[in-house]
Amino acid sequence: MVNEKLNNHNSGVASQTRETLIVMKIGGNIIDDEEKLSSFLKDFASLNFPNHGMGAKPLQGLGAKILVHGGGKLASKLAAQLNIPQQMIEGRRITDAETLKVVTMVYAGYINKNIVAQLQAHNCNSVGLTGADGNLIQSHKRSHPTIDYGFVGDIEITNIELLENLLEQNITIVVAPITHDKKGQLLNTNADTIAQEIAKALSNLYEVILVYSFEKNGVLENAEDENTVIKKVDPELYKDLKQRGAIFAGMIPKLDNAFTALNNGVKKVIIGKAENINQLIKGEAGTTIIK
Amino acid sequence: MVNEKLNNHNSGVASQTRETLIVMKIGGNIIDDEEKLSSFLKDFASLNFPNHGMGAKPLQGLGAKILVHGGGKLASKLAAQLNIPQQMIEGRRITDAETLKVVTMVYAGYINKNIVAQLQAHNCNSVGLTGADGNLIQSHKRSHPTIDYGFVGDIEITNIELLENLLEQNITIVVAPITHDKKGQLLNTNADTIAQEIAKALSNLYEVILVYSFEKNGVLENAEDENTVIKKVDPELYKDLKQRGAIFAGMIPKLDNAFTALNNGVKKVIIGKAENINQLIKGEAGTTIIK
Repeated sequence: MVNEKLNNHNSGVASQTRETLIVMKIGGNIIDDEEKLSSFLKDFASLNFPNHGMGAKPLQGLGAKILVHGGGKLASKLAAQLNIPQQMIEGRRITDAETLKVVTMVYAGYINKNIVAQLQAHNCNSVGLTGADGNLIQSHKRSHPTIDYGFVGDIEITNIELLENLLEQNITIVVAPITHDKKGQLLNTNADTIAQEIAKALSNLYEVILVYSFEKNGVLENAEDENTVIKKVDPELYKDLKQRGAIFAGMIPKLDNAFTALNNGVKKVIIGKAENINQLIKGEAGTTIIK
Repeated sequence: MVNEKLNNHNSGVASQTRETLIVMKIGGNIIDDEEKLSSFLKDFASLNFPNHGMGAKPLQGLGAKILVHGGGKLASKLAAQLNIPQQMIEGRRITDAETLKVVTMVYAGYINKNIVAQLQAHNCNSVGLTGADGNLIQSHKRSHPTIDYGFVGDIEITNIELLENLLEQNITIVVAPITHDKKGQLLNTNADTIAQEIAKALSNLYEVILVYSFEKNGVLENAEDENTVIKKVDPELYKDLKQRGAIFAGMIPKLDNAFTALNNGVKKVIIGKAENINQLIKGEAGTTIIK
């Protein structure tokens, strides 16, 4: 059966027979709240979504899924307890050697393994990985003309062999935002970017839906009003919204990333609250970004 | 090719055609010493050992390998920095909720991922796992009539599906001593026992050599003299050594464990220093325990 599936993938069959893959990123607003996280993981474990691009019946809890998690406040909290001063520049954590230890312990250890254990409890067989595991994501230490970001990694290569093999075994993959340089050095890496790179790399094999969860209901016409979710954004509307100044500044890099993903093979990008994962997938909540 | 190998395994072919698998456990004396660990991982990455039980030529760095690591002093050090009091009873760490967080971060995060990154640097493709990943090792919280060990796990089931699949892809597996109860709870679990259970569980498929590394050259006739290594111990000699009082007390549980493994399908158990891994495998150092 393994080989049959592999052949399906490799022979470049028409898109309507390809399996759907959800690549979802969750951040601090879910990870930092034990109850919210636990409730989300229960929903995610039994996520009900169409297994094929067209026509097929939804298969309960059998879809291919990858969950990429960020770090939240736990790393900052541990760093404070250990008296390791933290410095953020434009929302990016400056990662000195001691901070790298902290984020490796918190992201790859505590958060990643607790998510895996909870998914297992909901009969969702899962494996937690960093970019070092199976040489999944190779990156290099960021070089910047004026800022020393420390042990922060910018992604070079995403190797999908291991992911492909695990997905074929119906294993859900949980990715921590730590990569490596293939020279023995671990590197702290942005989780949004990891999700995007994995989504792009697997879009040759799957119909990939990339879900970015954050603290708002979706892309809002009025940033102050959660009831002004824009259901669909295509490039034309995006251009129009930007010109009208209707999109708040923080949303622009998210949408730029979404269009980059779509231009590199990802089928759909959905932005919204992780609490509404079932509705997000069905297009009943959040904002769907399409080409 | 995957299927061909699987069929080989499943059809119960004669033992001389089976591949050799090294399951090795390393402990604090290696993990706590950055230089020693780094030098050991270089040797382990390119371990040269016969790929088959009989007759086949050694394949450099291509043998099937699993490395199980303990925790060393790093967890105690972090616990001290965080003012979490540690209690040991008969060498076992009492694992309260805060201590479980610490060992999960240190074992599954810091130690496990640094080992994986270093192996990758030596072109040894590896994946780091806990017992929760792929539901590898399911355990239950230890119950004891008088001592509350806290979140310590006693192993119930070892599931080899994921290990088998990864080994077939020439991936080396690095296991951290954390398991789960399949109800969402992570549990601190003895690394020696994990190594033994994995070795036993895979002995249906591989010619398993179980290597326990520790701070001495092997089983010594005279515990004070590193030059009195006993090269081979079989059950008869073991009985004799015990009767003569020649084996020091700490060695007895190790040897009892070794014979349990041998009685459950493991081909060979080797005890010695991790620094001598190449010689241990060739029988040129350490003590080999056989049935």
